Amino acid sequence: MPAPIGFLPSGPRDSITDVAGVTVGHRTLAAGAVQTGVTVIRPHAGDAFRDKVPAAAVVINGFGKSVGLVQLAELGVLETPIALTNTFSVGTVATAQIRACVATNAQTGRSLPTVNPLVFECNDGWLNDIQRMAVTEADYRLALVAAAREFAQGAVGAGRGMSSFQVKGGIGSASRIAAVQGRDYTVGTLVLSNYGKPRQLVLAGQALGDRLAAKLSDAESAEADQAEKGSIIIVLATDAPLDARQLRRLAQRAGAGLARTGSVFGHGSGDIALAFSTAYTVPDRPERPMPAVAMLHDGLLDSLFQAAADSTEQAIVHALLRAESVTGRDGHRRPALAEVLALS
Amino acid sequence: MPAPIGFLPSGPRDSITDVAGVTVGHRTLAAGAVQTGVTVIRPHAGDAFRDKVPAAAVVINGFGKSVGLVQLAELGVLETPIALTNTFSVGTVATAQIRACVATNAQTGRSLPTVNPLVFECNDGWLNDIQRMAVTEADYRLALVAAAREFAQGAVGAGRGMSSFQVKGGIGSASRIAAVQGRDYTVGTLVLSNYGKPRQLVLAGQALGDRLAAKLSDAESAEADQAEKGSIIIVLATDAPLDARQLRRLAQRAGAGLARTGSVFGHGSGDIALAFSTAYTVPDRPERPMPAVAMLHDGLLDSLFQAAADSTEQAIVHALLRAESVTGRDGHRRPALAEVLALS
Amino acid sequence: MPAPIGFLPSGPRDSITDVAGVTVGHRTLAAGAVQTGVTVIRPHAGDAFRDKVPAAAVVINGFGKSVGLVQLAELGVLETPIALTNTFSVGTVATAQIRACVATNAQTGRSLPTVNPLVFECNDGWLNDIQRMAVTEADYRLALVAAAREFAQGAVGAGRGMSSFQVKGGIGSASRIAAVQGRDYTVGTLVLSNYGKPRQLVLAGQALGDRLAAKLSDAESAEADQAEKGSIIIVLATDAPLDARQLRRLAQRAGAGLARTGSVFGHGSGDIALAFSTAYTVPDRPERPMPAVAMLHDGLLDSLFQAAADSTEQAIVHALLRAESVTGRDGHRRPALAEVLALS
Amino acid sequence: MPAPIGFLPSGPRDSITDVAGVTVGHRTLAAGAVQTGVTVIRPHAGDAFRDKVPAAAVVINGFGKSVGLVQLAELGVLETPIALTNTFSVGTVATAQIRACVATNAQTGRSLPTVNPLVFECNDGWLNDIQRMAVTEADYRLALVAAAREFAQGAVGAGRGMSSFQVKGGIGSASRIAAVQGRDYTVGTLVLSNYGKPRQLVLAGQALGDRLAAKLSDAESAEADQAEKGSIIIVLATDAPLDARQLRRLAQRAGAGLARTGSVFGHGSGDIALAFSTAYTVPDRPERPMPAVAMLHDGLLDSLFQAAADSTEQAIVHALLRAESVTGRDGHRRPALAEVLALS
Repeated sequence: MPAPIGFLPSGPRDSITDVAGVTVGHRTLAAGAVQTGVTVIRPHAGDAFRDKVPAAAVVINGFGKSVGLVQLAELGVLETPIALTNTFSVGTVATAQIRACVATNAQTGRSLPTVNPLVFECNDGWLNDIQRMAVTEADYRLALVAAAREFAQGAVGAGRGMSSFQVKGGIGSASRIAAVQGRDYTVGTLVLSNYGKPRQLVLAGQALGDRLAAKLSDAESAEADQAEKGSIIIVLATDAPLDARQLRRLAQRAGAGLARTGSVFGHGSGDIALAFSTAYTVPDRPERPMPAVAMLHDGLLDSLFQAAADSTEQAIVHALLRAESVTGRDGHRRPALAEVLALS
Repeated sequence: MPAPIGFLPSGPRDSITDVAGVTVGHRTLAAGAVQTGVTVIRPHAGDAFRDKVPAAAVVINGFGKSVGLVQLAELGVLETPIALTNTFSVGTVATAQIRACVATNAQTGRSLPTVNPLVFECNDGWLNDIQRMAVTEADYRLALVAAAREFAQGAVGAGRGMSSFQVKGGIGSASRIAAVQGRDYTVGTLVLSNYGKPRQLVLAGQALGDRLAAKLSDAESAEADQAEKGSIIIVLATDAPLDARQLRRLAQRAGAGLARTGSVFGHGSGDIALAFSTAYTVPDRPERPMPAVAMLHDGLLDSLFQAAADSTEQAIVHALLRAESVTGRDGHRRPALAEVLALS
Repeated sequence: MPAPIGFLPSGPRDSITDVAGVTVGHRTLAAGAVQTGVTVIRPHAGDAFRDKVPAAAVVINGFGKSVGLVQLAELGVLETPIALTNTFSVGTVATAQIRACVATNAQTGRSLPTVNPLVFECNDGWLNDIQRMAVTEADYRLALVAAAREFAQGAVGAGRGMSSFQVKGGIGSASRIAAVQGRDYTVGTLVLSNYGKPRQLVLAGQALGDRLAAKLSDAESAEADQAEKGSIIIVLATDAPLDARQLRRLAQRAGAGLARTGSVFGHGSGDIALAFSTAYTVPDRPERPMPAVAMLHDGLLDSLFQAAADSTEQAIVHALLRAESVTGRDGHRRPALAEVLALS
Repeated sequence: MPAPIGFLPSGPRDSITDVAGVTVGHRTLAAGAVQTGVTVIRPHAGDAFRDKVPAAAVVINGFGKSVGLVQLAELGVLETPIALTNTFSVGTVATAQIRACVATNAQTGRSLPTVNPLVFECNDGWLNDIQRMAVTEADYRLALVAAAREFAQGAVGAGRGMSSFQVKGGIGSASRIAAVQGRDYTVGTLVLSNYGKPRQLVLAGQALGDRLAAKLSDAESAEADQAEKGSIIIVLATDAPLDARQLRRLAQRAGAGLARTGSVFGHGSGDIALAFSTAYTVPDRPERPMPAVAMLHDGLLDSLFQAAADSTEQAIVHALLRAESVTGRDGHRRPALAEVLALS
């Protein structure tokens, strides 16, 4: 078992849900050539449109099809839960988010001028018959209602069909506690890991790339020589009071954690990090009062930055170690990393 | 009839299709509470995925839900036609683009690892029952096959339900010819116009805001006092050899044309401009040869910048003058501008 | 005399100093071939390093040599007064700002790890022998101590040698009052105007380009045909409580005001807008308490955006109408606009 | 001696000057409390203004005072050599660059409308009495004329007073060769290393942070607990034909190399990477012909990205191992890393 990452303590679950109020739900589709799903992260238990959380994203490498980032950059808030799925299902899941928001507003009798769905994706097309577009709007709703503080990691939800370093990737999560002026703040991270070439792998500081590459069959080696076609989505939550500008700074540090695992942000990889804060919310309507929040001073952010990088690396390690082997379309199989390396 | 904009000549059609190879198609849905549609701009007659045109976008104000801009910013190329529709139909149209690309590739026997759909939107929810999500994937395909050099403007396609300055908006197009070192280049523009408060209107240099505001009923005046909920999408095509960096510069000048009409890029407006060049294409696969193109020197771009601003303003004027009155959901009606102001 | 711009009232001075606490000072060098200077904007009367104001900038066109924008984008605060000067004096003025900050800190016994000087520039090389680098560090200090609520406009300070539309440009200022939820906020703007080709000029809604172009001599017409080599710096102050993200949005609207005057953001023009708020300050050290501020809701910003665009256009009109004729190096002369057009 | 980084071969010098035409020069000031200097990187032997190389920069963390990045982002070319110095000398060095460019143009009889100096900096204030502003314009010129293919690394030039991980930092360089479609391209990197907290250090894959932290005196440990006040400047050169958009992508990968050494891009660190290509140049005047270059396909960039990350990490290792101990102002001393850790 690899050593834990870094020198900061983790939260009780070592998970993004160590940030109070955050929950995660999966909907997994696993039948024959369909190996895919949806994962939803809810920033709080309430109505994400009515009480928006501050957020910001960083595009580390933009070979990706995520939706919702234009408005996020302008307004600095989320207004739906964060959804993760496969590349070709982004449109369907975005539509499902719109419909869910319409329905909620209809119940409360308010009109809904518009809503900005936020959907991230990676391409699971090696294991999953992505062209079948198996994900439906109902799958989003099932993931949403499944959201809870305890959730599975590995080959589940949006992570079902994902690969990393040519072994099985998927969902991983971790957290770290940062002390700032005598007060503890949590940074929790969830990754959808689908990136990496075998030869690059560094696992918790150990360079395993050569060992991993040596285990590959000839066919797998040929695949490894091609341009990277992966991606990773990194979602960071924190209870520290930060505004959107500061959250962008926090998200930027996810790239440091990612790089430590051997990634050089490959050309064909959509590497995107998003950070949100649960410390306060922004009301949907100007008539409701704005929060008066004392943000953390930027000069105090170093331990949060360390937590962001460390929890990202740790979440990736968790994804790699918790994902079971999966066989999907055309008999394609991705083994678990532990199986290939006989880790224990 | 307002005077033409600026001092540059327009092309033979005064339309985006004055740029050779560019075609535009509409699918219009106009029945009772459904007043919406899809408009497609094809950069060339070939396969947009196989032969990608260089492109770049500028977010003037990011209250918008367009998809495809993350990868565009990274790679600087389009790989689908450009689709315009209403806000809540973005997911459906993106899915339709993916399916169309999958189908094309299946015919040619090539595998399709992934594709980046590009869909812009404005919110036509005042005239159109947007929550009904009436646009289907078939509507995208119908707009695509309808693409031609001659196309209608006004309350058609994605412009069917759009409003500007509380009168009818929609699709407008224009072009300008810029001479650079003795050679003529065309800049053609198409707008989906859905922005503007009555009091702001400047039409071809004439401040008509007070006149327009005076015509409003009390209910309309109350609506005008609220935050802007509009948007405008501006698409520029050119046959000048420019790379993605230069095309971003060109797109930036669309904002100048927009501002001349009275817009201050309202908070709730998704104002986005995209520019592409037809002067060369980038192959989908690295095995195919890259083009060796001498771009225009940046020091020669001023007349193209003038053409971008002027054709944008002219396209908006065309949208306002060519859109007929439309009555939609809940009896909402947007009159044609000419009707309100008795222009002739 | 042109009509006032827009429909919002201006403040008592119609000047950036209508924002309480803001002061402006000039140092003008006007002797033969040296026609240049320094202008300083102080956001408040205190120590700008110790009590930093929130701020953000937008690069409308980046053909410019301003310094300080990298850190401003990251941290969202100013830490020196804003200095304006000619292109080749940026280094000297930045050094003067550093030395002034070092001296202030030495007096208070605090150490100064570092400071981010903020200097904007335009190129006054047509009237001013810019290669002589006449501006000294002392000139910055003289401008700084001259800062007051009342200040001259036109061919003064950094504006001494600037040209616009081939007539005399320079310093202009204006303000507008925006009502938000029953409370008045001021947006004050100061421009350093050095952009524009004669044929483009629109003054307060009147297209004067043809008239102005007709007055040009042959030599001047030849000059007008070349690529734009101008620039404009636009500084906006407000007392509205906005964070850096929102101030970037406010600054973006300066481009709308600029465009109304005929600018298409020429290739060779360094067009940059910066907005700052005086509603609160951020302490230099983390040990000092952070302010707990309720920002304005983004949905309320439209009237501030209108004020930003309108006061920018008005400030440019003021610069053009208040700048006297200047003769500088090699006998070059820029007449006042009123002289050329016989405005009254 | 640590193992070499990564699996790509290095060039003959393992230095940025393995890219043909690139030269580096230093001017070192080392006397008592003055421990600073200037380093200059020339992209080619000609006139950098007349024949501009394509370039782009990425701001990894923007706590920095570099000048020239606004215009670089807009136009995508360098027009002076790249200068590195201490934070408070940026203005002086920028002025020196302007004067050098003026002088060159005067010799050739051409007029110089304007020039964009490019100066990067780190803060050497712990070893160097930075407030003395010891660097003069002459020092820039001396560094420029010293530029050669062979150059010293470590505590020289701009690196004289820099620290990393509380040991001596400074100048380091490395290169890697990437094979693309059967052809070799070189990526060469030079760093000015002044970042890092002791506990974070990872040297060529070895976590040395605890060992290093244990060697610190109490005073040094107290210093290490404070916010990071460092910075790193990373300059990448390549002979691969890339445009500015692609060079920005290349520069982005420097952050991956930096992260592997333990950096989390600390709050107070100005971490900036710039990449330029020597494969072609862009003429200063539109009258001269533009190059017709076939760029590399983006799908082929992965090995160059690997080279960028690996050569960055290697250059940092070289800086740390090649910098000798330095004693400066107030008796402050930074030991060489090898001395502290007794590496051999």
